[in-house]
Amino acid sequence: MAKSAEEVHPVKSFGWAARDDSGILSPFTFSRRATGAEDVRFKVLYCGICHTDLHQLKNEWGRSNYPLVPGHEIVGVVTEVGSKVQKFKIGDKVGVGCMVGACHSCDNCANDLENHCPKAIPAYNGTYHDGTTTYGGYSDHMVTNEHFVIHIPENMPLDAAAPLLCAGITTYSPLKYYELGKPGMHVGVVGLGGLGHVGVKFAKALGAKVTVISTSPNKKKEAIEHLGADSFLVSRDPDQMQAAMGTMDGILDTVFADHRLLPLLGLLKSHGKLIMLAAPNKPLDLPAFPLLMGRKLVGGSTIGGLKETQEMIDFAAKHNITADIEVISMDYVNTAMERLEKVDVKYRFVIDVANTLKAA
Amino acid sequence: MAKSAEEVHPVKSFGWAARDDSGILSPFTFSRRATGAEDVRFKVLYCGICHTDLHQLKNEWGRSNYPLVPGHEIVGVVTEVGSKVQKFKIGDKVGVGCMVGACHSCDNCANDLENHCPKAIPAYNGTYHDGTTTYGGYSDHMVTNEHFVIHIPENMPLDAAAPLLCAGITTYSPLKYYELGKPGMHVGVVGLGGLGHVGVKFAKALGAKVTVISTSPNKKKEAIEHLGADSFLVSRDPDQMQAAMGTMDGILDTVFADHRLLPLLGLLKSHGKLIMLAAPNKPLDLPAFPLLMGRKLVGGSTIGGLKETQEMIDFAAKHNITADIEVISMDYVNTAMERLEKVDVKYRFVIDVANTLKAA
Repeated sequence: MAKSAEEVHPVKSFGWAARDDSGILSPFTFSRRATGAEDVRFKVLYCGICHTDLHQLKNEWGRSNYPLVPGHEIVGVVTEVGSKVQKFKIGDKVGVGCMVGACHSCDNCANDLENHCPKAIPAYNGTYHDGTTTYGGYSDHMVTNEHFVIHIPENMPLDAAAPLLCAGITTYSPLKYYELGKPGMHVGVVGLGGLGHVGVKFAKALGAKVTVISTSPNKKKEAIEHLGADSFLVSRDPDQMQAAMGTMDGILDTVFADHRLLPLLGLLKSHGKLIMLAAPNKPLDLPAFPLLMGRKLVGGSTIGGLKETQEMIDFAAKHNITADIEVISMDYVNTAMERLEKVDVKYRFVIDVANTLKAA
Repeated sequence: MAKSAEEVHPVKSFGWAARDDSGILSPFTFSRRATGAEDVRFKVLYCGICHTDLHQLKNEWGRSNYPLVPGHEIVGVVTEVGSKVQKFKIGDKVGVGCMVGACHSCDNCANDLENHCPKAIPAYNGTYHDGTTTYGGYSDHMVTNEHFVIHIPENMPLDAAAPLLCAGITTYSPLKYYELGKPGMHVGVVGLGGLGHVGVKFAKALGAKVTVISTSPNKKKEAIEHLGADSFLVSRDPDQMQAAMGTMDGILDTVFADHRLLPLLGLLKSHGKLIMLAAPNKPLDLPAFPLLMGRKLVGGSTIGGLKETQEMIDFAAKHNITADIEVISMDYVNTAMERLEKVDVKYRFVIDVANTLKAA
């Protein structure tokens, strides 16, 4: 049983927490540890709202511990550094994503894949090395081992950069690992939400041809004119789908809801790759035949290691990639969650924490 | 509508065919084309019985045309060669596997992946370039474009080599493509049938550590002592499965029946690969979460191109790999199909065509 932060930590902190699986967030006073030798303390400026926040607030994965302070798309400004911190100084713009700890001794950690470390510690609803619960970025400040802190380049708008720490790396990493984000590749993106819209931008910037695959014809103009996709495919239109059969090298599948994989596998060329980036609550139907006949694969990917996350942010800064966001105040967060559940956001809510979180 | 071979071909042939979806085989007289300039004609000596023969005999995939002469694990001796044939001469020991034609102009053909050519012509129940139906190796002779004919090395027993033309390449190719068949890899093989038992031999010969995963504890001795597996895992034993979690780099899944993927995904390390080699009739449940968390993938593979099939046979000859077979006479074939349906064979039936096929 994790110790409550109040029992052991000296530094008062304040944020919003859910107290039960209603998922309703409300003001919450807690505490954070003193700045350790390798720690960076920073004032939270903005925090993105990820769809997984919603899952965890409502305990949809059965692993939520309350009180739960969400938030893993966190940017801010450094206010204190520990004696051994090497990469950061006071005043730096920084970010923290989904992880705040790992074992640093397994094969994955040795290969800069802390995201696949069996002992990776999530930014919230996790248990830290000292046995206390981790609390996320819907709060006034964070204190994080510097290994898990990212430099945010000076030219990036901090609010629109925040979602890159989760949605950005979640789409960038598979484009690299599965060798889809490069010239000559044709990449489909299914689901034009928080992940999908950033995935389109990264795939384009990495040199691929990009087709957005959506149930909604009315997203076409936006996908092509604003996000820069090359083409748009209405998945409910059998003629369009038939014409696009066997044309794609890979697909980023960002859909959280139950959906059919067979039509997506049909869009792939031989040796094509369907990459799942969201985890629907129930298993999906996997027809084996299309995998065999075209030597296709269904792979998965989740965020990325710290080294690759920094690479992604630097790439995004260079190519002017940020998330499209709607900035909200902290006291709007429960309404935002309701809207997120209805997919009523273009494309990511970001909480203006510094300006709207009022101390208890 | 394909023309019947009787309408157009001059050379009498004889074999056994199914006439309807009862799948019952009986003697059948038909004809084959004259030896074309690029054709090799050969007397069939042996033909393996593949599980897909059973599917097609009974029209389980809904694509069977009758009369249907099965057989795509065919070995024999060359009796005639066309004027432009370069690789074969009369008397050569040869084999034909699942394919007898392709387009030779698509990207897959250009990359020696005729097996993924959209116009690949199956050895039986296909439509050849001239519009006639293809008939397989449950017959007295074959006539095949030399591109689709394989040299059988002199030191191989022809009966036990026959199944390699399908079961062999089906397991060898994914071990190479997915980079599992090499030293340092730990490969699981699920299902110890026609495919699985050959998969164990190839994975071992290629340098991997091999674990057989089976529902039947009584296969352990055979798997380890006879087939050369390093270890054996009873999939119905929760303790054994728990202890083996996260230990495998890849798994060859050869199971035709419906089965659960989740326990198999659990056996994989991060970045592990579950490779489907059989196509169950219904979609399988695919839980996305394990794919995301370990960046695992579910891939497919089916046979291989001609170049790789020759490479596989040469590798098998060098390493003394053949299938474990039960040789049967042609008039036992319907009984063999009944036994195959009950998985009552170790591990592959091979029909002694030359000695037991009696002319009508």
